[in-house]
Amino acid sequence: MPAPRHKWVYLFREGSAQMRDLLGGKGAGAAEMTRAGMPVPPGFIITTEACRAYYAAKGHFPRGMWEQTTTALKKMEAQSGKRFGDPRNPLLVSVRSGAKFSMPGMMDTVLNLGLNDETTSGLAELADDERFALDARRRFIQMFGKTVKDIDGQKFESALSAAKKRARAMTDPELKPAELRRLVRRFLGIYKDATGHEFPSDPVEQLREAIEAVFRSWNTQRAVTYRRMERIPDDLGTAVNVQMMVFGNMGPTSGTGVAFTRNPITGRKELYGDYLANAQGEDVVAGVRDTEPIRALKRRLPKVYAQFERYARRLEKHYRDVQDLEFTVEGGKLYMLQTRAAKRTGEAAVNIAVDMVAERLISRQEAVARVEPRQLEQLLFPRISPAAKAEPIARGVPASPGAASGAAVFDADTAEEWGKQGKSVILVRIETNPNDVHGMVQAKGILTQTGGTASHAALVARGMGRPCIVGASKVSVDEARRSLSVDGRTVKEGEEITIDGTTGDIYLGDVPTVEVRSLNRHRAASRILRWADEFRRLQVWANADYPRDAKKALENGAEGVGLCRTEHMFMEPDRLPLVQAMIMAGTTKDREKQLAKLLPIQRSDFRGIFQTMAGLPVVIRLIDPPLHEFLPNREELISETSSLKATGKKPSRLKRLEKLLARVEDLHEANPMLGLRGGRLLMLYPEIARMQVRAIMEAACDLRKRGVDARPEIMIPLVGTLAELREIHEQLRPVVDAVQKEKGVTVAYRFGTMIELPRAALTAGEIAADAEFFSFGTNDLTQTTFGYSRDDAERHFIVRYLERRILERNPFETIDVNGVGRLMAMAVSEGRKTRPNMEIGICGEHGGDPDSIHLCHRLNLNYVSCSPFRVPVARLAAAQAAIGETTSTR
Amino acid sequence: MPAPRHKWVYLFREGSAQMRDLLGGKGAGAAEMTRAGMPVPPGFIITTEACRAYYAAKGHFPRGMWEQTTTALKKMEAQSGKRFGDPRNPLLVSVRSGAKFSMPGMMDTVLNLGLNDETTSGLAELADDERFALDARRRFIQMFGKTVKDIDGQKFESALSAAKKRARAMTDPELKPAELRRLVRRFLGIYKDATGHEFPSDPVEQLREAIEAVFRSWNTQRAVTYRRMERIPDDLGTAVNVQMMVFGNMGPTSGTGVAFTRNPITGRKELYGDYLANAQGEDVVAGVRDTEPIRALKRRLPKVYAQFERYARRLEKHYRDVQDLEFTVEGGKLYMLQTRAAKRTGEAAVNIAVDMVAERLISRQEAVARVEPRQLEQLLFPRISPAAKAEPIARGVPASPGAASGAAVFDADTAEEWGKQGKSVILVRIETNPNDVHGMVQAKGILTQTGGTASHAALVARGMGRPCIVGASKVSVDEARRSLSVDGRTVKEGEEITIDGTTGDIYLGDVPTVEVRSLNRHRAASRILRWADEFRRLQVWANADYPRDAKKALENGAEGVGLCRTEHMFMEPDRLPLVQAMIMAGTTKDREKQLAKLLPIQRSDFRGIFQTMAGLPVVIRLIDPPLHEFLPNREELISETSSLKATGKKPSRLKRLEKLLARVEDLHEANPMLGLRGGRLLMLYPEIARMQVRAIMEAACDLRKRGVDARPEIMIPLVGTLAELREIHEQLRPVVDAVQKEKGVTVAYRFGTMIELPRAALTAGEIAADAEFFSFGTNDLTQTTFGYSRDDAERHFIVRYLERRILERNPFETIDVNGVGRLMAMAVSEGRKTRPNMEIGICGEHGGDPDSIHLCHRLNLNYVSCSPFRVPVARLAAAQAAIGETTSTR
Repeated sequence: MPAPRHKWVYLFREGSAQMRDLLGGKGAGAAEMTRAGMPVPPGFIITTEACRAYYAAKGHFPRGMWEQTTTALKKMEAQSGKRFGDPRNPLLVSVRSGAKFSMPGMMDTVLNLGLNDETTSGLAELADDERFALDARRRFIQMFGKTVKDIDGQKFESALSAAKKRARAMTDPELKPAELRRLVRRFLGIYKDATGHEFPSDPVEQLREAIEAVFRSWNTQRAVTYRRMERIPDDLGTAVNVQMMVFGNMGPTSGTGVAFTRNPITGRKELYGDYLANAQGEDVVAGVRDTEPIRALKRRLPKVYAQFERYARRLEKHYRDVQDLEFTVEGGKLYMLQTRAAKRTGEAAVNIAVDMVAERLISRQEAVARVEPRQLEQLLFPRISPAAKAEPIARGVPASPGAASGAAVFDADTAEEWGKQGKSVILVRIETNPNDVHGMVQAKGILTQTGGTASHAALVARGMGRPCIVGASKVSVDEARRSLSVDGRTVKEGEEITIDGTTGDIYLGDVPTVEVRSLNRHRAASRILRWADEFRRLQVWANADYPRDAKKALENGAEGVGLCRTEHMFMEPDRLPLVQAMIMAGTTKDREKQLAKLLPIQRSDFRGIFQTMAGLPVVIRLIDPPLHEFLPNREELISETSSLKATGKKPSRLKRLEKLLARVEDLHEANPMLGLRGGRLLMLYPEIARMQVRAIMEAACDLRKRGVDARPEIMIPLVGTLAELREIHEQLRPVVDAVQKEKGVTVAYRFGTMIELPRAALTAGEIAADAEFFSFGTNDLTQTTFGYSRDDAERHFIVRYLERRILERNPFETIDVNGVGRLMAMAVSEGRKTRPNMEIGICGEHGGDPDSIHLCHRLNLNYVSCSPFRVPVARLAAAQAAIGETTSTR
Repeated sequence: MPAPRHKWVYLFREGSAQMRDLLGGKGAGAAEMTRAGMPVPPGFIITTEACRAYYAAKGHFPRGMWEQTTTALKKMEAQSGKRFGDPRNPLLVSVRSGAKFSMPGMMDTVLNLGLNDETTSGLAELADDERFALDARRRFIQMFGKTVKDIDGQKFESALSAAKKRARAMTDPELKPAELRRLVRRFLGIYKDATGHEFPSDPVEQLREAIEAVFRSWNTQRAVTYRRMERIPDDLGTAVNVQMMVFGNMGPTSGTGVAFTRNPITGRKELYGDYLANAQGEDVVAGVRDTEPIRALKRRLPKVYAQFERYARRLEKHYRDVQDLEFTVEGGKLYMLQTRAAKRTGEAAVNIAVDMVAERLISRQEAVARVEPRQLEQLLFPRISPAAKAEPIARGVPASPGAASGAAVFDADTAEEWGKQGKSVILVRIETNPNDVHGMVQAKGILTQTGGTASHAALVARGMGRPCIVGASKVSVDEARRSLSVDGRTVKEGEEITIDGTTGDIYLGDVPTVEVRSLNRHRAASRILRWADEFRRLQVWANADYPRDAKKALENGAEGVGLCRTEHMFMEPDRLPLVQAMIMAGTTKDREKQLAKLLPIQRSDFRGIFQTMAGLPVVIRLIDPPLHEFLPNREELISETSSLKATGKKPSRLKRLEKLLARVEDLHEANPMLGLRGGRLLMLYPEIARMQVRAIMEAACDLRKRGVDARPEIMIPLVGTLAELREIHEQLRPVVDAVQKEKGVTVAYRFGTMIELPRAALTAGEIAADAEFFSFGTNDLTQTTFGYSRDDAERHFIVRYLERRILERNPFETIDVNGVGRLMAMAVSEGRKTRPNMEIGICGEHGGDPDSIHLCHRLNLNYVSCSPFRVPVARLAAAQAAIGETTSTR
């Protein structure tokens, strides 16, 4: 008895939406529509499992796959009434890759597969249009050559251009059959030159090669890179979709279109899309002719429109999400080609999610899970003002969100120069490289002609938070002439342009932009956030150095201040002279004299924050940076003293500068990041810590007496050993006690430390004996765990590491799970072993990064603290982490 | 039935040497001698357990202890025929602390306890010497007041001086009984003023208070500090020894002495020690009278000497180690007071260990275990030449070993100034503090009048490897007059002195020193090392940058080169211009041109090392430091260009300097330690790595062809991710293959990495996929784990952290077990999970530190690599780690 046959191939009618893993997204969609009785051109899917088997067998189809393919083909023939390779009634097919997740990095489609000399003639007769058939043949050879055989596409394009030139034709359709026939021969010649073989005339052989090419496309460099970037596993494999061709270019009752079941820009509940009569899908993409809005179909073919509208409603209801649909009308008959979840703007995402809850289509949890954090961010980025009614001149790949206007400049040096003069500039390049970074820093936005979302420009711009558009291929940049041109319009250096990195749109002139700085007034967004608050377990706190930051944080829903950096207060112009005098003081006593003058200022700063955050915790970090940061720049001092010495001018100034320089040299360190700062500074200059703690406690006690519930948490930075923390604590406890006694009130306070050195994480179990709370300083923890000085590293090598995929993510943007995350996990588990209910949070930039927030949730932290503006994003991400957990353990 | 009584008190005859944990070292020794039938004055021991119980009961004697104490006292009375408090025949006792480990940080002895008005008269009659009895009483009040009641000793000293002045007496013995009687009254007054109570006249009350004081002395700050330093657990507790007083000052047939069973300086088998006729032990210490060599006793009291000699032999045999004995002769009768293992010099330690093996007294394992690594080190430090026959003028506490001569200077600035001029200086201070460090760096040796082995001077000197003597109380330093004086002899600034930090001896003038740079010619040491090699499991490799280092390493027994730093080769004067030209080159091509010139030089360096180490592994680290280290100093460039610009002089030089400065600025980093170096440099300038690997492989292949077995191991520094290492490896593999093909031979080589970043340790399991070996770079790993930049940290705060016991050890000298050690343990276990037989070692300074070597042994490393000169010490420490393991699991 033969072993039961393994099923490698599924007809559309045999599959369903649930079989996405096996059939890929595209195949599962076609199967589901077929199942639902919609008119889908017949076809079949070779499974992702077959692809994996192909790789396991080192490039051989698994046993039985090819037989099942030809059997499926036979069934397709029966369904369509056409036959593969039949000159009189030829079946033509499309072959497409289709992985579980959409992967633009993979193989394109091959259309019109099945054409050879005979079937081309048959198609010409059948359609009564020889030009159409020859053009289909020409396109097939070109696509097959390019995508299956990797032949340089430029060769075909040149031949096509030459043919048009010869025929004095402006567009492809103007080519006559005779000319097209010549072109087909030329294309076959190009194919043979490049491959060394004749073009396969047997449709079955064409199909076989196309299927294998789809399998191989799974592991091209481009696809692998894309998967790395999107973190799609490498072992999923792709399915292959083989489907009967239908033609939208068979006359006025034919056409092709794409449509969304709701408006993907605004979220409005309306069919939204484009229709192109008498055309193939390809033409829409190529932009050869202008498309019409989808309602044009209603006018042209009202019954077809009504049918499509019905299907669209059904599909949206079925998938419980907005669908992005592709369809073709062939001779008045509607064919549904594809359905998939629609990509949408932030605005649309929140509106749709809220509407669908109202329509009882999805639950609140689903609504919260469905809005991506970056979509919520989009609502906060500057956008092109809708009132401006500006028309973009071109569109590129949106690579870093936000809109910006400025003078176009074409090299980094000019961008830097103008930028430093205070001009707004947009740096325009064919592509960028590490030598351009200094210009990118000074630019308001970046636009490149080439490159994708993982190009240098995209990575750097996202890293720096600059709007960026890449791959704007319609824009021709002439760096030598310092100009760009689009469709014959030229922009010279210094002329204004506007880019919208959220949408990829490029505009002439200075188009007004708008910025929403609070989501509270956004009805749908604030509703999503309220729901998010119901689901999340992590609290969201904010970093706030001033009362105004705290106010903003509170508005955005923060539940505490996770980091109040006191050194920024020291840098204010009215305080810096006092701080400098304190540093220049020779004795503790002199230092204390200066510190006494700083005390009332600090106290009033703290009072403001405590008052704003009444009833909520406020974590205040005592002074962290090395003292030399408060003194003038060392190199400038060296330079000026050398000049003065050489010339003998201004002797009294020289004397003063020399004294200053001596102190600067005294404090100078080869590696200040690893030097006398944080806890070390507080240990050696305890008088600074005492003054700060006095200011904190005086402010808190004064408020307490007025009935305001101030909740200070005193945080010691850069601690590496329990002994350090203990000694500092012993220095400070008497100050706390003294102030409370003087003021006659008691204020509950906490004393804790940052965990920002590997050793602190490794010995967190010891440190927890003295620390009432931990706050991860993941920036410094990343610096020390990797041995990267952030400023140096980003300038010198991190960008290059990202380009070369040595690093998959910039560890300063998203917490490195295997290294830094592992240390955090140890610190949490061992810290809580010593002090079971310890409050543990994270402050710093990672606190606002969605992936890092997911990690913090998994690690069971109590809160994340981020910039006030990122609080909404953090609330959403925290909710999604909790929801994802419930879902995956369901 | 009453519960069985817990035994808190042991008579000497009830104890034994094995009961050291319970009875302390001193008590167990006295018990053992009593057991052996030797004449030990009767006494008893209150156990360490009683001390622990005292603390557990918050300062109350445990139930039954006091009753057992008085019972033991009764038995002592019976044994001695005297009675406590009996005016006619009073029993006097000494009360001493005695922990398991000798602790000079604890309470001193109280002698003559039991004296009051009545017993003093009785003693005077009995000894027929009123002066003697009154002096004993005076001393007792003084000691009791100081050590039991913590009264400032200066008060008693002043009263004594006043009395002598009044009596015009030069020394104590010149005081007449009447004067002494007055002094006793004065002392009793001082006591009452300070305590508010009368001096206890009841001997039992005196005893009770003395016992409690001993218990309390366990937790004084001094004792706690000492335990921290010596890493003695805090929960051991101390025993209390109560013993009948015997008097060596009862006439010419009385006396007191200390003696070693072998010479503790040379190791020679001879009784060695001092005897002082008609004196108490105290007088020996006070140095009031000069002692005679022990053989004087032979002449004075031949029978006593013979008896003592017999006991000494028996005790040595019994304890199987050289003993340090204390004894007293009272009226011709010998009393043995104490026996303990003798402290000895390095020379003595190795000679004694080897001799005792020959005498079959101890095994080879024991011999190896008994020589401390620092004793072996002593043999290598410069010593006073025996040929010099110099006499020391004073002796202090030896705090950092080695001898040094130089001009005496009395402040740090002068030390720095003269030192920088190339003069040899010895920095002499009353004590040092952090402001002196710059002078200490420039001094050849350090001498302080005050301080102990944990003082600032001692810590810093040991850290820097400078000879140092502290606590030289006979030396009077006058910092203001810039001179020191000893016994009326004065040394002024600039005059030569010599110090021996190994012995603590101080000499006038420039005394010649000798240095042994190899132990191979030291018969006993080389034997100990050969035995060590039999026992150890860790291999010992050496760090060698040049063939001459490799040769020295081999002589000292190294089994490989664990670190050959290639950058030192780049710094040589004939190469630096080429390296600088390479760095200034604008393109890869230009860089390659310069590198081609470096290639033959590097090749010949490597050839030399491979040839020397034929058959043994040589780990070569590719270039590690940031490139700016090879260029001129940035600050100097800034200063000179500023001067030239200001004056307009030398325009062509200015132009050249500006170009150089531009490149320096380009390479400048805020924290170079965490910057573009190591693997990062090799990744971005792969041409440097390729040149180095070519040089390595060409040298190895050339030698291979000549039959020399070169074993290169190529090591990549500062790697933090697997991807980094993999990419570098992929860059280099073709070079290795190409060279082997060109040369027509194959050379086995390994490719591996340093583990010197926390992330490398945390992801060692991943990195091991590509690394064939690991070498811990514990210096950088310590820098990043603690977040300390070594140079900055040692200068700015580590010394202060050590002084304040925030750090117990300098983590750059001894690996921090809880932080860095934990990361190492993770890396070893996870690295070997991926690659089971992976070779793992450690290079860098910790590799020569005995405690760190013990850790490396426990972590199952394959080797430690250290400086060639430390190889013998490492061999010994490695053997001791292995022996300790066997012993503890026995």
